[in-house]
Amino acid sequence: MSVLNERLEWRYATKKFDATKSVPAETLERILEAVRLTPTSSGLQPFELFVVSNADIRAKIRAVAWDQAQVTDCSHLLVFAAWDDITADRIHMMFDLTNDVRGFKNEGWESYRQMLLGIAADRGTEANYQAAARQAYIGLGAALIAAAFEEVDATPMEGFDPAAVDDILDLKSKNLRSVVMLPLGYRAAEGDWLVNLKKVRRGRDSFLTEIN
Amino acid sequence: MSVLNERLEWRYATKKFDATKSVPAETLERILEAVRLTPTSSGLQPFELFVVSNADIRAKIRAVAWDQAQVTDCSHLLVFAAWDDITADRIHMMFDLTNDVRGFKNEGWESYRQMLLGIAADRGTEANYQAAARQAYIGLGAALIAAAFEEVDATPMEGFDPAAVDDILDLKSKNLRSVVMLPLGYRAAEGDWLVNLKKVRRGRDSFLTEIN
Repeated sequence: MSVLNERLEWRYATKKFDATKSVPAETLERILEAVRLTPTSSGLQPFELFVVSNADIRAKIRAVAWDQAQVTDCSHLLVFAAWDDITADRIHMMFDLTNDVRGFKNEGWESYRQMLLGIAADRGTEANYQAAARQAYIGLGAALIAAAFEEVDATPMEGFDPAAVDDILDLKSKNLRSVVMLPLGYRAAEGDWLVNLKKVRRGRDSFLTEIN
Repeated sequence: MSVLNERLEWRYATKKFDATKSVPAETLERILEAVRLTPTSSGLQPFELFVVSNADIRAKIRAVAWDQAQVTDCSHLLVFAAWDDITADRIHMMFDLTNDVRGFKNEGWESYRQMLLGIAADRGTEANYQAAARQAYIGLGAALIAAAFEEVDATPMEGFDPAAVDDILDLKSKNLRSVVMLPLGYRAAEGDWLVNLKKVRRGRDSFLTEIN
């Protein structure tokens, strides 16, 4: 088994964090950097990441997240917020950035830009948001694995009122919509009902099909 | 920088695979196992993974995937297929499996089962499929990172006709829908236009917001 898979076996959806323990800044940065490096469709990175340590804001979020204690007991709360639309401006921003970073323009890349502009315009706002939200989940996967790799506990969380979280974090004015949250921290020594239960996954045979 | 992030810097969306090189079985297994271990919402694992090495099937898929050469030149083609609906049967399957693995029934878990049954029934087929598809993207993130960790190249791919891939892999009869593909293999020594170009990501300041 690889070190990576050992850490994936080790991790679990932490139910009780030790509220006295904080993730060191350098460790946190490595987790955030893994998310920033995550590949996304056409390189658009159609989401942003909010790192909430402020206690008042977290208390407000907890109130619209089924009162889940991890929101306030964790060290840092990550909120993944997807673009509410894939607009022409946003496509241009990423394609222009690519030209800037690479230092040249390329005909193939420019026709790909035009094609994407067409696809996004045809698809409409809601379908563009849904496509962006899927990409945010690649980032969630990266954050989960990077956290486990750093032996930091994490709890993926869809159980919250997205519109209320958007209000609390003022996401609408940034044309973003919250899609999923990830409290990061360290499991409490006692009081977590899940920590000692077996991990449940479907077996290889009912999850994988090989076509040889 | 962590080893994990070094590998994330190393990886790129490979455009030209060396068709003579195959991913060793043990390496492939570790990547597949990372996907199987990936956490998903409520532990449902609402997707399956197809590992396609058959040449004829891959030629057919390439024909409905914009003729992208990676589909046939890679070592193994992963196809992520989401549940087309989150049915009561599927919810019961995972909750029953959990009871089997853990060896006991629990009142809280059983009321959570009932709540999920209600949510899925209210949400309807299409929204259930969309929710399942998002979870498949967590699996995609895990596969991408696990491949990079094993120094295996990979190319996330949304550019294909999902309905046509569903036909080729007979997914409809399994109540699945293809959502994203990931060719795995080794980059060719020459002929990849992307390999030497700089990776482009938005900077920390335009991607991350800290709320302290």
